[in-house]
Amino acid sequence: MPNPPSLSKKTAAIISRPARPQVAQLLPGLISWLDDHNYQIIVDEQTAGYVSGQKVIPRSDIASHPPDLVVVLGGDGTLLSAARATAAIDVPILGVNLGSLGFLTEVPMQSLFPMLEAIAKGHAAVETRALMQVELIRDDQVQGSYLVFNDAVVNKTALARLNMYDLFVDKNFVSTYRADGMIVSTPTGSTAYSLSAGGPVLMPIVKALVITPVAPHSLTHRPLVVPDSAEVEILLRTEDELAYLSLDGQPGVDLRDGDRVRCRRSEHHVKLFRTGADFFHVLRSKMKWGERQAYE
Amino acid sequence: MPNPPSLSKKTAAIISRPARPQVAQLLPGLISWLDDHNYQIIVDEQTAGYVSGQKVIPRSDIASHPPDLVVVLGGDGTLLSAARATAAIDVPILGVNLGSLGFLTEVPMQSLFPMLEAIAKGHAAVETRALMQVELIRDDQVQGSYLVFNDAVVNKTALARLNMYDLFVDKNFVSTYRADGMIVSTPTGSTAYSLSAGGPVLMPIVKALVITPVAPHSLTHRPLVVPDSAEVEILLRTEDELAYLSLDGQPGVDLRDGDRVRCRRSEHHVKLFRTGADFFHVLRSKMKWGERQAYE
Amino acid sequence: MPNPPSLSKKTAAIISRPARPQVAQLLPGLISWLDDHNYQIIVDEQTAGYVSGQKVIPRSDIASHPPDLVVVLGGDGTLLSAARATAAIDVPILGVNLGSLGFLTEVPMQSLFPMLEAIAKGHAAVETRALMQVELIRDDQVQGSYLVFNDAVVNKTALARLNMYDLFVDKNFVSTYRADGMIVSTPTGSTAYSLSAGGPVLMPIVKALVITPVAPHSLTHRPLVVPDSAEVEILLRTEDELAYLSLDGQPGVDLRDGDRVRCRRSEHHVKLFRTGADFFHVLRSKMKWGERQAYE
Amino acid sequence: MPNPPSLSKKTAAIISRPARPQVAQLLPGLISWLDDHNYQIIVDEQTAGYVSGQKVIPRSDIASHPPDLVVVLGGDGTLLSAARATAAIDVPILGVNLGSLGFLTEVPMQSLFPMLEAIAKGHAAVETRALMQVELIRDDQVQGSYLVFNDAVVNKTALARLNMYDLFVDKNFVSTYRADGMIVSTPTGSTAYSLSAGGPVLMPIVKALVITPVAPHSLTHRPLVVPDSAEVEILLRTEDELAYLSLDGQPGVDLRDGDRVRCRRSEHHVKLFRTGADFFHVLRSKMKWGERQAYE
Repeated sequence: MPNPPSLSKKTAAIISRPARPQVAQLLPGLISWLDDHNYQIIVDEQTAGYVSGQKVIPRSDIASHPPDLVVVLGGDGTLLSAARATAAIDVPILGVNLGSLGFLTEVPMQSLFPMLEAIAKGHAAVETRALMQVELIRDDQVQGSYLVFNDAVVNKTALARLNMYDLFVDKNFVSTYRADGMIVSTPTGSTAYSLSAGGPVLMPIVKALVITPVAPHSLTHRPLVVPDSAEVEILLRTEDELAYLSLDGQPGVDLRDGDRVRCRRSEHHVKLFRTGADFFHVLRSKMKWGERQAYE
Repeated sequence: MPNPPSLSKKTAAIISRPARPQVAQLLPGLISWLDDHNYQIIVDEQTAGYVSGQKVIPRSDIASHPPDLVVVLGGDGTLLSAARATAAIDVPILGVNLGSLGFLTEVPMQSLFPMLEAIAKGHAAVETRALMQVELIRDDQVQGSYLVFNDAVVNKTALARLNMYDLFVDKNFVSTYRADGMIVSTPTGSTAYSLSAGGPVLMPIVKALVITPVAPHSLTHRPLVVPDSAEVEILLRTEDELAYLSLDGQPGVDLRDGDRVRCRRSEHHVKLFRTGADFFHVLRSKMKWGERQAYE
Repeated sequence: MPNPPSLSKKTAAIISRPARPQVAQLLPGLISWLDDHNYQIIVDEQTAGYVSGQKVIPRSDIASHPPDLVVVLGGDGTLLSAARATAAIDVPILGVNLGSLGFLTEVPMQSLFPMLEAIAKGHAAVETRALMQVELIRDDQVQGSYLVFNDAVVNKTALARLNMYDLFVDKNFVSTYRADGMIVSTPTGSTAYSLSAGGPVLMPIVKALVITPVAPHSLTHRPLVVPDSAEVEILLRTEDELAYLSLDGQPGVDLRDGDRVRCRRSEHHVKLFRTGADFFHVLRSKMKWGERQAYE
Repeated sequence: MPNPPSLSKKTAAIISRPARPQVAQLLPGLISWLDDHNYQIIVDEQTAGYVSGQKVIPRSDIASHPPDLVVVLGGDGTLLSAARATAAIDVPILGVNLGSLGFLTEVPMQSLFPMLEAIAKGHAAVETRALMQVELIRDDQVQGSYLVFNDAVVNKTALARLNMYDLFVDKNFVSTYRADGMIVSTPTGSTAYSLSAGGPVLMPIVKALVITPVAPHSLTHRPLVVPDSAEVEILLRTEDELAYLSLDGQPGVDLRDGDRVRCRRSEHHVKLFRTGADFFHVLRSKMKWGERQAYE
């Protein structure tokens, strides 16, 4: 059912995980559907590895050719990357998983076309997720600024003994932590690394950040939930200058004694197309909680 | 320095923990100060056990003689009780601890009069804390309605084996928990029972509730933080009708299979006069985190 | 293949979980097999609910008619009960689960007859599990003495606030715990209630007991592993006389302030016939760890 | 009170933490006492930094000049180092802390001379602690062999994503862990890093090892206690060859995909002179449990 020609064509970007046979299967149909629905198509380098003849834009430049729709074929990792790349342009993302349900890529392959139809008709639900702006500050200079979806982690290296971290919330000193590392997580990230380190699950709509120490020396140091209007700052104190900052699980940036990692809610958000399933449906599935239980 | 007579006298209520010598020491000076500052004084039955000649009003009726100021002499337990008794009337509370710093009774005895002076001059800071409205629902009827400051707990009894609890958030099913109990806590309550059961610390200003299972059968059942605009409901499922509901740690109300405990943010708040010390100062002291540490 | 007649017939006891269709299916074949192999059969009351014509002995008296073999048809709860009832007579138990693998009832229904054949041929592996002797001591008098397989738990009641427990190991004071309860667990019990309360998993052959506080007030109170040659004593301190002692998850015995619960390794053991599967196989299955994972 | 000359002089080794004024204070008196009691004295390089005129032997060579007594002036870290250096020669160690009680250096400075007198008279209690032998195996070759007192840790590096570890106990596969790291700890090490990662406390006399994953991806992966007669093996599986092995908290050895870390109880032990105080006394002090509590 081809659409009538439109004066201003819309643009759709396809971002893919490399080396997955399922992506190769999905792409021809997806491209046809987008063509039929009058979308101009751009693909990232990874997608270009599966198909030829499409306009290729590096993932990091996609925001400069602002699409009206982003389709992600992959897992949560691919979607995290796509979300950071397009956060500044407020475009909704359709995240399709390739077999195993993701916290973010909730849409199964068989629902790709029904979801596209719903999007075309304006029926698809969109969920907004908070992002976190992270700055690395050295000698009172901003050395780097990053947009993260899950978490910022300051961690020790192989050669370091226990590091110390001073935590501040809105410039108020909280405590000195001796720990392997410190995680500052969005609600979205609360089901990722923070959970492994003993943090709580936050519903995505809670306006909060959670700060979770990893293997803290003091057993009384527990995860701390702060409003997302707060500025969270971690001051690294290490004699050996052996620590690093990792963002959304990416390989780390080296840190030095005295470096500060400052986290606050970003003004940007991520918009995700959702199936009807609520957060708890995904949570039950990912946490293996099973469905409602009968009496034994 | 007696104040000039005023046409409309203000009222101050004094609420005390029984059987504490420190209360007997503080009361004469406190009463003098309130007299001198033109307050009409009412005292609860516990306070009447220390002094004679004051107008005695049962604690549960104090809100019917609405005071302009409530002074609590005791620990966090006494303040919890005072807060529930006066929540409907929006009166600020001055909580004075009798020796050991409380999360809520942060003011030490030696600061009682400086704090009163600051209050008289309108300089004293006031902090607002959220309360939670809890309803017990049986056969679709509201059996009881309670105002709580810390937490609502559904727990098994001595005779019960593991109970099952179905958790709902805004009518959405979350999971079936097999556990000793379920805690629904305000941010204020996050440093009480919920913490012992593995919950996170929430800053008091976070607009959220935390649901913490006690000794859950499934190791993947973790504390869950939800927005305080949500309605949290726990449905008790027990073959043996052996469970109870406890509010702010008070002795419990018996529950039956099928009972529902529904929690939501109250429209009421508690107002606490605070010294300058921030939440983290109290947290460090109560959690024995110590102050900022130097390198070893 | 009927066995040759023997001068002294052996005895087999059958102990069953009530109200399970699978038991009704298994029993005729099991009884035939035992008859054919020259066993005299005794059954407990629950088994008598499924079949007629067998000699019925109350479960608690089975040790007085000492069987040479005990077959348990049920789950871990039924096996716990059978183990306590027969602990004094050193008889090996064949625990058959009715569909879902148990930590103790590891043998699936379809393996019942192969296992019986292996037992008849003397090929079946037997595993020995430690039991714990628990005494309740009041006013220096032994009020009760119990044999437990999993754990002894001292717990608060619905009406109690936080109780205090003094822990002693070999008469040495360890600490005062404020907690919902205290668990003293055998290695076998380490995967039961203790695990839910944050305890470690102990391999069954570790010669140790683990003491796990439930929701301790102090976050530094952690599970403690002691040698099973030690005497572990919990002294209850409660103003309200509102606590109870529960053994292997059975409904509790009331306790008073000053009561002591004393635990030590029993001189008795439980012997379980095992399939070839090792402890970790069961652990992986029960803990949902899955099998060895490939790279993603 | 000089001792009578003896035909065979005994040897005492002094091992010190560098840069501590308390060591400089203690050393002259200690050396005098040892001279007076007919000990030949050897000191390590660190001790030689405080005093001249003594025979200096590198710490790692002290076992080749086997002393009859080792005195350690420092904290637990210094004692760990001394214990590894002298483990092969079965010599008792007197560990003196320099101000803050250690789990291992339990003797306060003011008790140094009373303890030495007790040792001279043969009255001093000696406690034996287990050591662990750790081998690093690559391509079926033993690449390194280490004696550890606390723990062996396999950990990811800054650049690694989540590593996988296959755990085997006595060649039986336990589970594949996705985690930051894996700790294999002696009972002595159970109060060190393993505790921070959620492990239990083991009394030093428990004949067991504890395996504690650090921030495991699966919430059902819990600390596991195995008999110390078992062989524990961790097989590293990492695409990126980015992991390291750390022993007793020392800077790490690089590991590759496929490397195996094999841990078993050593045939060697450490002997520590102890004051009368039991393990729980030290535990209470280090864990800030305080003493026996009265009713509030």
